Amino acid sequence: MESNSNLLPRLLRGIIPPLVTPLQDRDTLDAAGLERLIEHVLAGGVHGLFILGTTGEAPSLSYRLRYEVIERVCEQVKERVPVLVGITDTSFVESLNISRKARDAGAQAVVLAPPYYFPAGQSELLEYLKHLTPELPLPVFLYNMPSYTKLVFEPETIRAAADFPGISGIKDSSGNMIYFRRLQRLLKDHPDFSLLMGREELLAETILFGGHGSVCGGANLLPQLYVELYNAACAKDLPKMEALHQEVMQLSDAIYNVGRYESSFLKGIKCALSCMGICSDFMAEPFHRFRQVEHKVIQEYIKELGITQNR
Amino acid sequence: MESNSNLLPRLLRGIIPPLVTPLQDRDTLDAAGLERLIEHVLAGGVHGLFILGTTGEAPSLSYRLRYEVIERVCEQVKERVPVLVGITDTSFVESLNISRKARDAGAQAVVLAPPYYFPAGQSELLEYLKHLTPELPLPVFLYNMPSYTKLVFEPETIRAAADFPGISGIKDSSGNMIYFRRLQRLLKDHPDFSLLMGREELLAETILFGGHGSVCGGANLLPQLYVELYNAACAKDLPKMEALHQEVMQLSDAIYNVGRYESSFLKGIKCALSCMGICSDFMAEPFHRFRQVEHKVIQEYIKELGITQNR
Amino acid sequence: MESNSNLLPRLLRGIIPPLVTPLQDRDTLDAAGLERLIEHVLAGGVHGLFILGTTGEAPSLSYRLRYEVIERVCEQVKERVPVLVGITDTSFVESLNISRKARDAGAQAVVLAPPYYFPAGQSELLEYLKHLTPELPLPVFLYNMPSYTKLVFEPETIRAAADFPGISGIKDSSGNMIYFRRLQRLLKDHPDFSLLMGREELLAETILFGGHGSVCGGANLLPQLYVELYNAACAKDLPKMEALHQEVMQLSDAIYNVGRYESSFLKGIKCALSCMGICSDFMAEPFHRFRQVEHKVIQEYIKELGITQNR
Amino acid sequence: MESNSNLLPRLLRGIIPPLVTPLQDRDTLDAAGLERLIEHVLAGGVHGLFILGTTGEAPSLSYRLRYEVIERVCEQVKERVPVLVGITDTSFVESLNISRKARDAGAQAVVLAPPYYFPAGQSELLEYLKHLTPELPLPVFLYNMPSYTKLVFEPETIRAAADFPGISGIKDSSGNMIYFRRLQRLLKDHPDFSLLMGREELLAETILFGGHGSVCGGANLLPQLYVELYNAACAKDLPKMEALHQEVMQLSDAIYNVGRYESSFLKGIKCALSCMGICSDFMAEPFHRFRQVEHKVIQEYIKELGITQNR
Repeated sequence: MESNSNLLPRLLRGIIPPLVTPLQDRDTLDAAGLERLIEHVLAGGVHGLFILGTTGEAPSLSYRLRYEVIERVCEQVKERVPVLVGITDTSFVESLNISRKARDAGAQAVVLAPPYYFPAGQSELLEYLKHLTPELPLPVFLYNMPSYTKLVFEPETIRAAADFPGISGIKDSSGNMIYFRRLQRLLKDHPDFSLLMGREELLAETILFGGHGSVCGGANLLPQLYVELYNAACAKDLPKMEALHQEVMQLSDAIYNVGRYESSFLKGIKCALSCMGICSDFMAEPFHRFRQVEHKVIQEYIKELGITQNR
Repeated sequence: MESNSNLLPRLLRGIIPPLVTPLQDRDTLDAAGLERLIEHVLAGGVHGLFILGTTGEAPSLSYRLRYEVIERVCEQVKERVPVLVGITDTSFVESLNISRKARDAGAQAVVLAPPYYFPAGQSELLEYLKHLTPELPLPVFLYNMPSYTKLVFEPETIRAAADFPGISGIKDSSGNMIYFRRLQRLLKDHPDFSLLMGREELLAETILFGGHGSVCGGANLLPQLYVELYNAACAKDLPKMEALHQEVMQLSDAIYNVGRYESSFLKGIKCALSCMGICSDFMAEPFHRFRQVEHKVIQEYIKELGITQNR
Repeated sequence: MESNSNLLPRLLRGIIPPLVTPLQDRDTLDAAGLERLIEHVLAGGVHGLFILGTTGEAPSLSYRLRYEVIERVCEQVKERVPVLVGITDTSFVESLNISRKARDAGAQAVVLAPPYYFPAGQSELLEYLKHLTPELPLPVFLYNMPSYTKLVFEPETIRAAADFPGISGIKDSSGNMIYFRRLQRLLKDHPDFSLLMGREELLAETILFGGHGSVCGGANLLPQLYVELYNAACAKDLPKMEALHQEVMQLSDAIYNVGRYESSFLKGIKCALSCMGICSDFMAEPFHRFRQVEHKVIQEYIKELGITQNR
Repeated sequence: MESNSNLLPRLLRGIIPPLVTPLQDRDTLDAAGLERLIEHVLAGGVHGLFILGTTGEAPSLSYRLRYEVIERVCEQVKERVPVLVGITDTSFVESLNISRKARDAGAQAVVLAPPYYFPAGQSELLEYLKHLTPELPLPVFLYNMPSYTKLVFEPETIRAAADFPGISGIKDSSGNMIYFRRLQRLLKDHPDFSLLMGREELLAETILFGGHGSVCGGANLLPQLYVELYNAACAKDLPKMEALHQEVMQLSDAIYNVGRYESSFLKGIKCALSCMGICSDFMAEPFHRFRQVEHKVIQEYIKELGITQNR
């Protein structure tokens, strides 16, 4: 199964930014922006890239564009770090199609949330994973994101799925730390099963208490900050960890809470990247880039926090 | 805009079954079954067909298969009734793609629920409709289905969207009759805006109190029953209406509540169609056809209710 | 058990207003207002009174005040119609206490929603009813109000409880007409079990399709309108029913949607009653009466709709 | 205002067990059990007691019984530690009544969740706090418990309320660590505002990252374990903290997940206390003690974990 995965460690650890997808318009990639973004985050020392996730606006993109993103990213990364590709889809066949494209392009793994239209039960979800994973050509990371998919992967479902060949870990974006702790306990006999935190505000405590890494949206902006925080937590250097954690919280407060609606974090990141000169802030429907007034607020923050492309 | 829509009345009324999609396996159509199904419901006197909706399992099907369904259905219907095509998608571009396919194949209208991954606000939804509808090549029916899409089209959003050219009506599957009544009041000055009920248990009162029609899953099985109930309600023939309403409720109790989970209605309809010899009961992931035990229960009901292909 | 219930028909039918509780301040009854209100609704021909429900703000009142309400209402009604008393409480013992007070004061029945703090399961709810009802000194109407209590009485739970001695009916305020229809079917062999609709917007169709009555907040304002609509629906006089239904919808649109928050219907009714000169619009915490600006809007409506104390 | 509060530190810190209420039957206290329980937890070194909270089943108890609990606990504690009394109620007047009883009995503070029947908006909640707190005779801790009360105290509401005189802190039982972190940042200029964690699984990281204490249900059983974990986290002794955290997680897994339904944690604690010989496991409606089969499971765990009254 694992044609491209000698690059993927047996246990994935560290900071894996969920890359935004720079766009010129709803169906045209901002290719130069994508290039700059990739180099920016790799320069920060991240341990992998996750493309076509929620932060990557994957569900809003055409398949054609998603395929283009996969090819360009893999081509440019050139195996410097593992590339994980989101394949979540309401259609099993389309998930397979994307996963094959990912394998062909040289990606290392795929990431899969529950199919998010029909409200399936846990036994249906487990059966779904049982059917799907043997057909997938790359290792799979599960993705728990109940506020967007409506469906939760219950801890017992994850525990059962962890025995399927090819399932390598989970990214939990529920924000529910008790859920995450429960996963840790249920999976303590699976030392190769990677437990990744999807909310950067919880990165420090995740690592300190035995989690393996984090998928941090803010690492699009300040990759080095998250890598340093990860390292401080691994080293159990509490004073340094606390100081960096406060920087993460400050960025979260500043960038993710401008404007209304739950999509603020996404608009904030794209807007900040545009202020930093890295890529366009165009967003695919149903969203739109921030208007002048919110843009200004973000720009102020960027200056205030001293965020630059080269930091 | 309305190249194929001289067939579509200015105000769509009546019974429009949401066609199931007969499958041989997850990516192969049961083409003979689809043919039989279409002739079965047309023989029942329905006023239109709605393909690729929730009952049609559209989100679970590959795009290739969805396109095949559109072509085969339009070809066989041959303009005997209007064909409405579901184009709901998380990606604006893919919704456009399907809508063009629908126009090319000769369909009369498209049906659109909110993009269902990102939790958009009402102003974002309205903006989405404003952007999308001018590009759509066919008249649009909105589709309110909050339990599956997470997002509700608030009555005021519908009211505002009703003024956009090309928006012809709404199908409400919320089951919330107070919402439906509120729509009726807000849209009383839009005599050409079609108000369709998506829950067959509420068909009778919908028509009696001024609604225009209904998208009834059970009309896959017994199209004539729903047409007769619609006619009785239009004629305000209360005794006949009450008797037929009880038959509808009996079918709903019998067929939609076998097995666990919210998907029971879908599995029940496909299973019953298979018992009737019309088409296969294969279901696309994340679902599976009923097993032996539930199949037997449905078969009993079919016999008991006297449902046959020719009724 | 049924010391006061010879007044209560075997099957309760008709319009039962959920009386507001007129207040001078948070713990002082507006006794004169209460008197006027009672005479106003009785003059409208209603078939019973429901006190200390949601519209009566019961959960916000002290026990002392609730007891005072029970006594004053029973004393003034003097068995002209049955009085139903809300006894919903998170504490079983306090529910018992209120029910005894109700019996002693001469009330005819009690109304009980699930205990609404702890999230109990259906089997726990059924057990709760099994324990509680034998100790209650008056017939019980169940009360389904999931948006306030978090807990739904599932149809099967109601069906099972209907066999307990002393359970006489249900008031459903869920607004879910499919739920109500399901109750009708499950209870068709219980001809003495009263099915009451808690949402006045659905009164007409409830009666027309075999329901028995309705608990209508608007009947505090215009009791006769609701009684006439009930009668028209019973008589299957469709044109009259439709006309009166439109008046009910107009009142609902006008009075219940002023201001923000879900509590608007409650504030609207109290404000309208105050405009009509019937009673004070003071509200117990956590709510407050409408301010000047909303008050004016309601006053305009009252004038426009021609609502007066003597209508 | 603070007649009894010289015992209450300006900033409350440490482990405050939410005491269960030992019962003989639904309205009779197990007074000897309560005495043993109090001595058991005080012997463990806890920093305060919280009575009549969710774990104390307060909403299920009669007022008479709640008053008895307040008096007996205060009398026995004899100011060895501060006593916090839950006064949450849907009725403002009854909350006041309990708070006065608490002051008279010698308690040090009260704990208040939102009134939990009517769905109030944030501005209504803030107004509610503004009205209520000046009348309360003791310092107040707010209580965020959205899964039971339906209402969340939004961080901005807490921030605004923190300026009202007499509001001393918050207990957050949401389990949402991002919410807790946000509170910490919003209140960093309120050094006397106590931030208490209501979920013991998150105790360690709460303290380590600057929270002040925790209300831990498990401290009814093993008070010393939680006190030691609190101390280890304060001392930033990571190895000890990690080891004790694992013990807490083990207890949580073992005792709180027996049986179905959300109430399992409550039934588990009472059952374990009964196995330990401390008090009765009777529960007030709508709950019931564990039956034989679950009781045995808990008993096994107690033995396995080596939990005894004197540990």
